[in-house]
Amino acid sequence: MERHHFEEELQALKQRLLTMGALVEERAHRAVRSLIDRRLDEAELVIQSDQEVNDLQIEIDRRCLTLLALQQPAASDLRLITAALKINDDLERIGDQAVNIAENVIKVLPQAPLKPLIDIPRMADIAQSMTRDALDAFVKRDADLARSVLKRDDEVDDLKDQVFRELLTYMMADPGTIQRALALILISRNIERIADHATNIAEDVIFLVEAKDVRHHHDATEEVEKS
Amino acid sequence: MERHHFEEELQALKQRLLTMGALVEERAHRAVRSLIDRRLDEAELVIQSDQEVNDLQIEIDRRCLTLLALQQPAASDLRLITAALKINDDLERIGDQAVNIAENVIKVLPQAPLKPLIDIPRMADIAQSMTRDALDAFVKRDADLARSVLKRDDEVDDLKDQVFRELLTYMMADPGTIQRALALILISRNIERIADHATNIAEDVIFLVEAKDVRHHHDATEEVEKS
Repeated sequence: MERHHFEEELQALKQRLLTMGALVEERAHRAVRSLIDRRLDEAELVIQSDQEVNDLQIEIDRRCLTLLALQQPAASDLRLITAALKINDDLERIGDQAVNIAENVIKVLPQAPLKPLIDIPRMADIAQSMTRDALDAFVKRDADLARSVLKRDDEVDDLKDQVFRELLTYMMADPGTIQRALALILISRNIERIADHATNIAEDVIFLVEAKDVRHHHDATEEVEKS
Repeated sequence: MERHHFEEELQALKQRLLTMGALVEERAHRAVRSLIDRRLDEAELVIQSDQEVNDLQIEIDRRCLTLLALQQPAASDLRLITAALKINDDLERIGDQAVNIAENVIKVLPQAPLKPLIDIPRMADIAQSMTRDALDAFVKRDADLARSVLKRDDEVDDLKDQVFRELLTYMMADPGTIQRALALILISRNIERIADHATNIAEDVIFLVEAKDVRHHHDATEEVEKS
């Protein structure tokens, strides 16, 4: 593969990752909206349309392997392609979390609303912006933008703890709320995992740009996916 | 790098992944034991010793990049190295789950035991055997062994649902049990995630051995990490 063609293929790889990112972001957004709007049909749609994400994941993996096989890539291209491999996995797992959210929504919707939802939509908004910016940082090789993603992960963790404490209070006061509160707690954990995957992507981007491994260094306590 | 040296480096890479696997397996085991034996000190040890796993992850990543950079690897070596990159990530996340388990153990231990623990240790045993066999399958290039790992993931999911239903019953009957029951539910989810990572590794092994992508094909409903 000549250099020019190789560059084109790298661009195509980035484009496909952006498509994958937009797809899983849309699915996660739709899953959380189905909870807020109490739309069972929308939740079911998220579960049914998982195949598209899976097919795209396999296609992107193949592109990476082909690029690694056909040309002995320079160090920075090598990091780009291995970052793409890892980012692809994280995006697919964000898609899995969208399905998990939708499944929990289906459990909670038959019952009356427990309370107005405030923190869960906020968590979802932050997690979505993290995913989008992490991918944007990848395409633009923007380490600062990637660092801003790492910071937002703490906000999501704080909101997750807040959701937990509040729902615990409901459960203790009235056992009739336990099942609904549990489903909401699990949904908040699903969203937190989306934020964790966005954080992983951001760390891969910083390594890609600066050839420096920030994993386990930006702050040891941030690294572990809490749940 | 000459071929002979390359082979040696591949062997060393496999050895380091086995070391990483043994390390995170031991940590997950210790975290679950700290719950069963009610040992706060052991739970704290799991949290404190996370750095070793993180350092090893970075070392293994570097080995993979070096191997990809120094020699234009043949197709099967290429798949081996990219599988190692992915497996390394999954192992590190198993280590994260061990920390999460230990954190939940620390929350639950100050309170009196809720019930004798049966299903959680069973889940943990299965998840541990899955991790070990998935790595063993990687080193031996044994697709059948990898497939047996995929099957066991369903057992873990069933146990997770059973744990959830049982603890829900406790919570509904006596709100005084809610906090303990919640911590145990979260621990069962942490263990389930370990099993999911082992499943991911097994899928990578099957792709490596058969150059066939089993992700999203063995059974669509098994693929999504439920939680």
